[in-house]
Amino acid sequence: MIAHAASQLGCETVVLERSASVPAAGSVGRFLVGDWNDPVLVGQLAQQVDVVTLENEFVDAEALRAVEATGHLVFPTAASIALTQDKLRQKQVLVAAGLPVAEFRAVASLEQLEAVAQELAYPVVLKTRRNGYDGKGNFTIRAAGQLEEGWRALGGGRQELMVEAFVPFVRELAVIVTRGRNGETAIYPVVESTQRNHVCEVVVAPAAVAVELAERAGAVAQCAVAAAGGIGSFGVEMFLTVDGRILVNELAPRVHNSGHYTIEGCECSQFENHVRAVLGWPLGRTRLLAPAVAMVNLLGSARGSGKPRGLTAALAVPGAHIHLYGKATSEVGRKLGHVTALGADQAEALALARRAADAIQFGDPL
Amino acid sequence: MIAHAASQLGCETVVLERSASVPAAGSVGRFLVGDWNDPVLVGQLAQQVDVVTLENEFVDAEALRAVEATGHLVFPTAASIALTQDKLRQKQVLVAAGLPVAEFRAVASLEQLEAVAQELAYPVVLKTRRNGYDGKGNFTIRAAGQLEEGWRALGGGRQELMVEAFVPFVRELAVIVTRGRNGETAIYPVVESTQRNHVCEVVVAPAAVAVELAERAGAVAQCAVAAAGGIGSFGVEMFLTVDGRILVNELAPRVHNSGHYTIEGCECSQFENHVRAVLGWPLGRTRLLAPAVAMVNLLGSARGSGKPRGLTAALAVPGAHIHLYGKATSEVGRKLGHVTALGADQAEALALARRAADAIQFGDPL
Repeated sequence: MIAHAASQLGCETVVLERSASVPAAGSVGRFLVGDWNDPVLVGQLAQQVDVVTLENEFVDAEALRAVEATGHLVFPTAASIALTQDKLRQKQVLVAAGLPVAEFRAVASLEQLEAVAQELAYPVVLKTRRNGYDGKGNFTIRAAGQLEEGWRALGGGRQELMVEAFVPFVRELAVIVTRGRNGETAIYPVVESTQRNHVCEVVVAPAAVAVELAERAGAVAQCAVAAAGGIGSFGVEMFLTVDGRILVNELAPRVHNSGHYTIEGCECSQFENHVRAVLGWPLGRTRLLAPAVAMVNLLGSARGSGKPRGLTAALAVPGAHIHLYGKATSEVGRKLGHVTALGADQAEALALARRAADAIQFGDPL
Repeated sequence: MIAHAASQLGCETVVLERSASVPAAGSVGRFLVGDWNDPVLVGQLAQQVDVVTLENEFVDAEALRAVEATGHLVFPTAASIALTQDKLRQKQVLVAAGLPVAEFRAVASLEQLEAVAQELAYPVVLKTRRNGYDGKGNFTIRAAGQLEEGWRALGGGRQELMVEAFVPFVRELAVIVTRGRNGETAIYPVVESTQRNHVCEVVVAPAAVAVELAERAGAVAQCAVAAAGGIGSFGVEMFLTVDGRILVNELAPRVHNSGHYTIEGCECSQFENHVRAVLGWPLGRTRLLAPAVAMVNLLGSARGSGKPRGLTAALAVPGAHIHLYGKATSEVGRKLGHVTALGADQAEALALARRAADAIQFGDPL
């Protein structure tokens, strides 16, 4: 989707990926196949382009730093990737910026985990500091009896871990923020996202919250991205607590699933604004093109073919925008596409998007 | 732009083009480089895909027919391409369908041209039956003294020619019609287009005409595409005469410049609907997303670099959607991109699009 936006603006994209059979294959001119943690390959990529950018936060920050050291532009910067990909450092930076987050501690041993859990009070969430996503790398410990199970589930000390107080949230909110090389910032509307098995399933824009709260969420997101020195489109996930507080849950230093709705839903998408930002160009406006927009992810329900069944029925839903990523195989919960719909209100938009999404199934025998 | 729409729907595109350094290079997975009039190459293309489609009408219809004969799907069909690429046959088909067109005659000699010109009354337009576009292959004969000049300018009998009565139009209107494999039809709003030196410069949607007239234009366009057996998105160019008549000027059997505004301006673009149509899928809705939409072409003003100057200023115009085709070189009048803007009315949309388009220049020394 970044490559689409770049192509529309007359820019060629060169992709470095482990396999050439990925969704972007249909949208780019050139492909480098290999490991994006290999500084030599990242260096080769950098030599072919004006600017290097990322669409996942798991690239080795040291490899990016090595490329920056040779004078190439990398946005988001290696420093910004390094701090966001470590959830402990990310939280420390957010706290230093005066932003509200759940209580957290680093833990280096089972004994320390026990002490911290007692201090923060159960339940607590044990997390790997790196490489977690969609609930992977998280373990909720509800009572002392689960301490050892959690500790072992996340590697028994072989990975760096942290503990957070469990947040009894009433809604999960998210805001996409695009920040330019000169600090210019575009803030998208606050959305509500709903997860199923820790995987984002539905995003509704705008979130049905009071104006004051929406503005606060936007301001918190903007500060969070600035605190991380972010350049490009970032996703800021937040919890809304029972008592009306907003806590920053996580910062993703990349275009984000909670912003896919912006392709049809906003004047300038998170993808186009990402391209504009990393190239040092002026940002586009983020306003919604309809009173409400909904996005429903198309998740695999079984292992099997990535080819959709029911596409014709989905395409027949008026106003539903179907996106298919062209992935070859389906896995349970794998993101294989999404549907966006605009509406006069959130319920109408969501009903439309759901109707189309429900028509599509993946997982036929290969 | 077709490849973008296909990719969004999870489809891979294979392109057959004379050079791999064309705009689509940034949007497709596979490329066949060669002459698209070569039946062997078109056959190779057909073997790699589910359906062959076209984005220009100058492909040899015989090559397409040969591919159809081997059982491959080609949409628009070879028959439909054959009749639209011959302007004489196209007009005959429109007349047979009861559609209004300017008077026309085939002419095979200078003597016949003189007789026809007298019969239709000056001025008349001498046209090549094939391969004309953007005013190329047209010559307006204003008086008998220009007959020989016109005859020689269009090849002196080496190409098949026709003559049409000159239409003193007040507006040029156009309608994009997408027609599915099962005859399902999507009709886009009627637009007004303005040409500069016979090249489309501005498109405004909807055209500022009475509802009755807009409906008539839509109906005429729908009938014209059906008469041509069209499958896919077609552009129907029409003249509005002083006395309120609509005359079909030309049918383009492909996505059309007068429909580029549909990418941001309509719920489903002419490109996505083209993909849906040729794949036999249900069509999307064509309604405008704003009261008015304007599109301004970015035309080269000099021979030179295709790299734009002034892009930053253009991107800073709020609400302007910039499209750059990534062509390497500029020529006077060459289409190098376009700008679309939505507005509360036609004047507002056009002012926005023009402001951004005026900021961009091409033709720096290479």
